[in-house]
Amino acid sequence: MDKKQFLSTILNRKSVRSFTGKPLGQDDMELLLRAGMAAPSAHNLQPWKFIAIVDRQILNSLAEKLPYAKMLFEAPAAIVVCGDLTKTGSSPKDYWVQDCSAASENILLAAEALGLGAVWTGVYPRAERVETVQGILNLPSEIVPLNVIPVGTPKGEHQAKDKFKSENIQWNRWP
Amino acid sequence: MDKKQFLSTILNRKSVRSFTGKPLGQDDMELLLRAGMAAPSAHNLQPWKFIAIVDRQILNSLAEKLPYAKMLFEAPAAIVVCGDLTKTGSSPKDYWVQDCSAASENILLAAEALGLGAVWTGVYPRAERVETVQGILNLPSEIVPLNVIPVGTPKGEHQAKDKFKSENIQWNRWP
Repeated sequence: MDKKQFLSTILNRKSVRSFTGKPLGQDDMELLLRAGMAAPSAHNLQPWKFIAIVDRQILNSLAEKLPYAKMLFEAPAAIVVCGDLTKTGSSPKDYWVQDCSAASENILLAAEALGLGAVWTGVYPRAERVETVQGILNLPSEIVPLNVIPVGTPKGEHQAKDKFKSENIQWNRWP
Repeated sequence: MDKKQFLSTILNRKSVRSFTGKPLGQDDMELLLRAGMAAPSAHNLQPWKFIAIVDRQILNSLAEKLPYAKMLFEAPAAIVVCGDLTKTGSSPKDYWVQDCSAASENILLAAEALGLGAVWTGVYPRAERVETVQGILNLPSEIVPLNVIPVGTPKGEHQAKDKFKSENIQWNRWP
């Protein structure tokens, strides 16, 4: 495939916090979830669950209770990426955070590619947010929400930031 | 862009652990690093550093000392994605793991798009591996290696796994 075109999806991904009222198609939701599950995981344990939310009342409840997720009032859908602690095996428990973060990035990139907007709003490791989301979504204690990702059709213009900084690169070893 | 084409890059990404001896082009390395820095981060703090390794002796030293990174003996290059704890601000320190994991996934996807192979070999949170990599790369204590990502031209055939499982999805809330 075209290298530059693919890179442009990665470079054009931006955090979208404003949405039109247009509902999210079922096909698009499934593509986002499929992208999430294609992420790598330590020892291929796939220690994740995905809560796909389209219910207006549940979206509103999350918007009311989470400090940085007010855009859920207008987002038509959200995906909550959760660690499944019953699947972490003998790995350090913390690997699920890395695995679920890779899955989350796949979802954000797939949204960009589909012409949708999305934003990663953090939940774990803030205990009060974890409890709030577990309560609203009826999650058992071993299903730990990493984030809430509102998704929808972007309203207005959104520009990606250019975050390339050569000073973030060291060649071969620290000087 | 073509939705299916983009999704195919996400779905075709696989862990490549065998490489031809072909050197990695400088342009490709820069694209991988650029992709990494395009990831989102909590409060846009960008708490990361990237060590881009092409030095044969350093690659060999890492291969000798890390249990799951023996493919570094034949990989022409590697990227070590590190958390920069001086940039985590007042966020919970642990957010750097999520931010650097998103950056790592961007690098893996960019490698796939460029026809390269790569694999995420875990370092953090295993203390002995963190110390090993910090020692070989001369990293200060506040630069914490999350992983080592060998990169190169794949040798042989590599198939992506289909990891989609409908039982990993719950609609709206836990049943």
